[in-house]
Amino acid sequence: MRRQLLITITLAVALALGPPAAAADPLSSWNEGEAKRSIVDFVQRVTTVGGADFLPAPERIAVFDNDGTLWAEKPMYVQLAFALDRVKALAPEHPEWKDQQPFKAALEGDLKTVAAGGEHALLELVMATHAGMTTEAFAQVVTDWLTTAKHPRYNRIYTDLVYQPMLELLAYLRANGFKTFIVSGGGIEFMRPWTERVYGIPPEQVIGSSIKTKFEWRDGSPVLVRLPEIDFIDDKDGKPVGIHRHIGRRPIAAFGNSDGDLQMLQWTAAGSGPNFCLYVHHTDAEREWAYDRESPIGRLDKGLGEAQARGWTVVDMKADWNRIFPF
Amino acid sequence: MRRQLLITITLAVALALGPPAAAADPLSSWNEGEAKRSIVDFVQRVTTVGGADFLPAPERIAVFDNDGTLWAEKPMYVQLAFALDRVKALAPEHPEWKDQQPFKAALEGDLKTVAAGGEHALLELVMATHAGMTTEAFAQVVTDWLTTAKHPRYNRIYTDLVYQPMLELLAYLRANGFKTFIVSGGGIEFMRPWTERVYGIPPEQVIGSSIKTKFEWRDGSPVLVRLPEIDFIDDKDGKPVGIHRHIGRRPIAAFGNSDGDLQMLQWTAAGSGPNFCLYVHHTDAEREWAYDRESPIGRLDKGLGEAQARGWTVVDMKADWNRIFPF
Repeated sequence: MRRQLLITITLAVALALGPPAAAADPLSSWNEGEAKRSIVDFVQRVTTVGGADFLPAPERIAVFDNDGTLWAEKPMYVQLAFALDRVKALAPEHPEWKDQQPFKAALEGDLKTVAAGGEHALLELVMATHAGMTTEAFAQVVTDWLTTAKHPRYNRIYTDLVYQPMLELLAYLRANGFKTFIVSGGGIEFMRPWTERVYGIPPEQVIGSSIKTKFEWRDGSPVLVRLPEIDFIDDKDGKPVGIHRHIGRRPIAAFGNSDGDLQMLQWTAAGSGPNFCLYVHHTDAEREWAYDRESPIGRLDKGLGEAQARGWTVVDMKADWNRIFPF
Repeated sequence: MRRQLLITITLAVALALGPPAAAADPLSSWNEGEAKRSIVDFVQRVTTVGGADFLPAPERIAVFDNDGTLWAEKPMYVQLAFALDRVKALAPEHPEWKDQQPFKAALEGDLKTVAAGGEHALLELVMATHAGMTTEAFAQVVTDWLTTAKHPRYNRIYTDLVYQPMLELLAYLRANGFKTFIVSGGGIEFMRPWTERVYGIPPEQVIGSSIKTKFEWRDGSPVLVRLPEIDFIDDKDGKPVGIHRHIGRRPIAAFGNSDGDLQMLQWTAAGSGPNFCLYVHHTDAEREWAYDRESPIGRLDKGLGEAQARGWTVVDMKADWNRIFPF
C-alpha cells in the first residue's frame, strides 16, 4: 500500500516536472562520423532491453590497452622514462653502473644504446629499478614520480597526457552498465596507483605485466617484497591469457592501438554474441603524433590490415577527435 | 530550480510517508551473539558518513576463502571428488592408469593410497584431469559435473552445500557497498563457472590456484588451451600474493576457516585503517562436521590461537548459526 502510494506520487511528480532538459553529449570530443556512430550503435544494441543483441550488465566487459590507447606513448613509453629516472636516482647506491650496460647508457641519456640492447636491456632496467622493495614502497615511488616528472614535449605531468575522447568513452560505457578494464603490456603496479583517479578504473580492474612478489615479515609486519623475476608478460598472445586469468570471461568490447593488442581484439571478436573492436590510429602529427606501420613503439601494421578486412572501427585521431588532451 | 523543486517534493513525500517499516533482518540465520554483533558493528563503523572509521565504498574490499568457509569441505574437497570422477570418466582413453599410481588407487576408490601420495599425487590427478583442453571445454565439464554429482552425506548436488549464513553475509556486505571476492586454494577455473549464480560473485572477483594457459588457433578460432603446468598456488603465503596480484589493494575484511587462510587474515589485519577478521570454526558434528586442530582437511590450529590472541571473531557454527544450509 505504502509502496503503491510512493510510486503514484513519484509518477505524479515526474509528470509535473516534464521531460528532462536534453542531456549534454557524453562523447562531445568525438566528431560526428563513422567511429562515433559505431560506438553509440553498439552500446544501444547491447543495452536495449528486449532487443536481439541485449546483454545483461555483468556481460558488458570492456578492455582497454593503455599506452597509445588511453594516454600518449611517444616519444617513449612513460614507464621507460620512469625507469631511466630511477636509474639516475639509484645510481649513487650502484657505482658499478657507471661502467655497465645498459645502465651506463641510461645514465648518459644515450637512448640509442639502450634501445640497441633490445628487450633484454629494457628488462634489466626494469628489474633493477622496479624490484627489491615492498609493494607499498614501490607504489609510493611511482606516485611521487608522477607528481613531478614532466613530458618532454608538452612540459606537463604525464597523467595530463590522457586522451579526452577516451575518458569520455570510458565514462559513457560505465554509464551504460559496462565494467571497464585496462589490459596493458605495461607494468600492472606502475598503473594501479593512479588509474582510479585518472580513468575511474580501480586497481582490481587493471591487468598488466608483472614481476613476482613474496610474502614475508619485516619488523613484525607482513609485507610483499617485489622480486627481480618476471611473473607475466601481458602483451600480444599474453593479453587473452591475462584477460582470462583476471576476468575469467570474454570481453564484448576491446580497444587498442597497436599490433600488441591484436590478439586481444581477435579474442574479443571470437565471442559468440555481439562484440565491438576498435583501433585508435595515430594520424595527428600536429596535435599528437602520426605513426603506424613503421613505428618501433606502438607499431600498427598487421592490426590495421585486419581491422580493415573485418570491418572493425578505426579511429582517425585527426578527423575523429576534436580534442586530444583535457588541457 | 527544477532540481530544487524535485528535492523539496521528494522530502515532502518522505515525511508524509513516515519511516519505513522495520526491514527484515538481513542476517536472520545468525543467532544474536558476539559474532553477529561484531559483524554489524564493523559494517556500521565503516559505512557511517562522518564517523572516524568511515571508508569510501571502493575501499570496502572483503575476501572470502571458499572450501569450509562458504561451502562444505568434508569428507573431501569438492574439487578432489571432481578429479576422482574425471579419472574414471577419462580412464578408457588411458589404459595405462590401471597399473599406475595415483590413478590406480583413484580408479579403485582407494582414497588412503591417494592421500598417502601426498601433494604430489593430488597434483598429478589435477594435471591429468584439468589440463589438455580449452578453457571453454573445461568450464563445460565443471558445469556438467556439478549438475549431476551428489554429495555422499547429504545426497544433494554440491552447490546446495553452501552455508546460508555466509550467503546472507555476502549479500549484507554488498548491500553496504562492499565488493566481495573469493580467495581460495582451490582451482580458479573450477569455481568461476558457478560462483556468480550461487554466491553472487562474478568470475572477475574469484581468485584461486591455477595452471597455465596458452593462446592458439584451432579451426580458425582463437582458443586458450590449459597446460599441465602449475601457474600459481593460492594458499597460505600465496593468498596475500594472489590478493595483491588480482585486487591490488588490501582488503578491509577477511573470512576463513583454516590455517591456510591465516596469512590472508594477517595481511588484512595489518592494514592502516579499520579492518575485520573472522574465522568460521566447525563445531557442529550433528548438522555438519566438527573439526579443527587435528583435521588433515581444513586444519585450524595456529589460526585459532592467533584469533584468540588478537581478538578476531570466531564463529561457533553450532551456537552462532541457526541454519547451516539453504535446504
